[in-house]
Amino acid sequence: MSIRIGILGYGNLGRGVECAIRQNPDMELVAVFTRRNPEDVTILTETAAVCSIADAADWKDKIDVMILCGGSATDLPVQTPEYAKMFNVVDSFDTHAKIPEHFANVDAAAKEGGHIGIISVGWDPGMFSLNRLYANVVLPEGKDYTFWGKGVSQGHSDAVRRIAGVKDAKQYTIPVESALEAVRSGENPELTTRQKHTRECFVVLEEGADAARVEEEIKTMPNYFADYDTTVHFISEEELKANHSGIPHGGFVLRSGVTGWEKENKHLIEYSLKLDSNPEFTSSVILAYARAAYRLHKEGQTGCKTVFDIAPAYLSPKSAEELRAEML
Amino acid sequence: MSIRIGILGYGNLGRGVECAIRQNPDMELVAVFTRRNPEDVTILTETAAVCSIADAADWKDKIDVMILCGGSATDLPVQTPEYAKMFNVVDSFDTHAKIPEHFANVDAAAKEGGHIGIISVGWDPGMFSLNRLYANVVLPEGKDYTFWGKGVSQGHSDAVRRIAGVKDAKQYTIPVESALEAVRSGENPELTTRQKHTRECFVVLEEGADAARVEEEIKTMPNYFADYDTTVHFISEEELKANHSGIPHGGFVLRSGVTGWEKENKHLIEYSLKLDSNPEFTSSVILAYARAAYRLHKEGQTGCKTVFDIAPAYLSPKSAEELRAEML
Repeated sequence: MSIRIGILGYGNLGRGVECAIRQNPDMELVAVFTRRNPEDVTILTETAAVCSIADAADWKDKIDVMILCGGSATDLPVQTPEYAKMFNVVDSFDTHAKIPEHFANVDAAAKEGGHIGIISVGWDPGMFSLNRLYANVVLPEGKDYTFWGKGVSQGHSDAVRRIAGVKDAKQYTIPVESALEAVRSGENPELTTRQKHTRECFVVLEEGADAARVEEEIKTMPNYFADYDTTVHFISEEELKANHSGIPHGGFVLRSGVTGWEKENKHLIEYSLKLDSNPEFTSSVILAYARAAYRLHKEGQTGCKTVFDIAPAYLSPKSAEELRAEML
Repeated sequence: MSIRIGILGYGNLGRGVECAIRQNPDMELVAVFTRRNPEDVTILTETAAVCSIADAADWKDKIDVMILCGGSATDLPVQTPEYAKMFNVVDSFDTHAKIPEHFANVDAAAKEGGHIGIISVGWDPGMFSLNRLYANVVLPEGKDYTFWGKGVSQGHSDAVRRIAGVKDAKQYTIPVESALEAVRSGENPELTTRQKHTRECFVVLEEGADAARVEEEIKTMPNYFADYDTTVHFISEEELKANHSGIPHGGFVLRSGVTGWEKENKHLIEYSLKLDSNPEFTSSVILAYARAAYRLHKEGQTGCKTVFDIAPAYLSPKSAEELRAEML
């Protein structure tokens, strides 16, 4: 029998989950829940229902795992605890500083409902977190580095779009190659924000807007750009659409450490991702953890989990025997 | 209270474990067990005992985890089941084809003794296996690649040393950069053995040996060299000692895959290791899993486990709260 999946929220991430379900033969999409009028939402999967989010509770016994595809700022802090009372849930909550609080809320709700809630699943937090943990335990004496990009930052793109005179914009975060090379060489450099990443903006101006003023506003924007070397390109709307409509991302997690009685031997662990579609990759990670949520619940476990709490074998459709024979 | 560690077998791996214990403040080395006369074995840790392997059973209650540092060919298939009856054990069994059989033997013995046995821990099998599994579950449609090196292969070095006229030798396995690049580009190439790795040998000849005959014997040796492009360098004993006495290794695990309704988006996951000391890095991985063995045993679990069966949080000395706050 397939694992019956529900999707709550049908934006880029929800569509990504829908696509990923097609690549996992042990899963099926049962229903998509939306805040919009369901009649206005067209999905790709012919066999699945489109429902109002208000009717989600009616699906309690027809869905094994509900994937929560809302945003971390306002949706998930409310939705994940709420739906963990009714369903096994997986979310991609990515506000790092608020993870302990979110964990506690989801844990209480999931235990109350007798369900599993897996939070902060994706690539960062997610696969990058796992790699930080594994690298730290195998090299207890060392230094961690995370670089992001090259990729589109949604938050930074939005910040540029809010500037008066900007019609549309895309922002790329780019790791500094020489900083990466310094880490790989085992130099253990101390790197400032500016030394690790540069930012590149492609901006479409409103008719008659002052390019120099817009560029100045971008480059001096606190938190977002002021601490970085930022390049601004003004382009046409057509060019933005033609060359910058994708949502690529990626990055690098490195740990450089030493072993030996006199710490005489150096080691470098590097993990990297190069992704054409950030939301589709995130969705794909989420589904692997949906499989784990389903299995943990079947075993009678309840409460909140993160990627740190889940043995890798739970993620795979293969049996333990197959995994040992084929992948170990 | 510290986790009390025993080391069984004091070669490169045993010494590596001894060094790594110093880097893990929650562990202490209690005793080293050797087949040699204990009086002839000098270890680095002043506070630990050196004992005959025949006396290991006397330490049943004084050691929390016994690290088995013998070889995969003949030692571990016998030792791991034998000692899993008396101790929690971790080994680095790396004969991939025989893992299912080894697992079954260790599982029966560990359950009989009420202990945990974690097998095939290190980097391949070990960290590379984990990366193959994680990459496969997040990209169900894709292609796997493992490259080894640049590094010293002990088995291939030994094979060269067995040739008549060879006094000493070191063999390096080297990944072919253009093949790696083809994988990274998303071309999903089909690669033959010869296209993935080259082999380089540094050979010291016995007085009067025929270099041309030795080179021919190396290059045509079935399984070891015949399927590869092999370069042979004849050097002096001094040069071998000066430039080739280390045991570096490393490698790459890549998965290239697609997502999207029409499989239109490409993704690349890459994990790599660059190690100055193969046995010390392996030892360091083993100790992280020794911590897991200790904890699983405390929880009352028994039987054989692999890296696939162990949730990452078990490997870290940090609490679940610390891990979520600092690494997620």
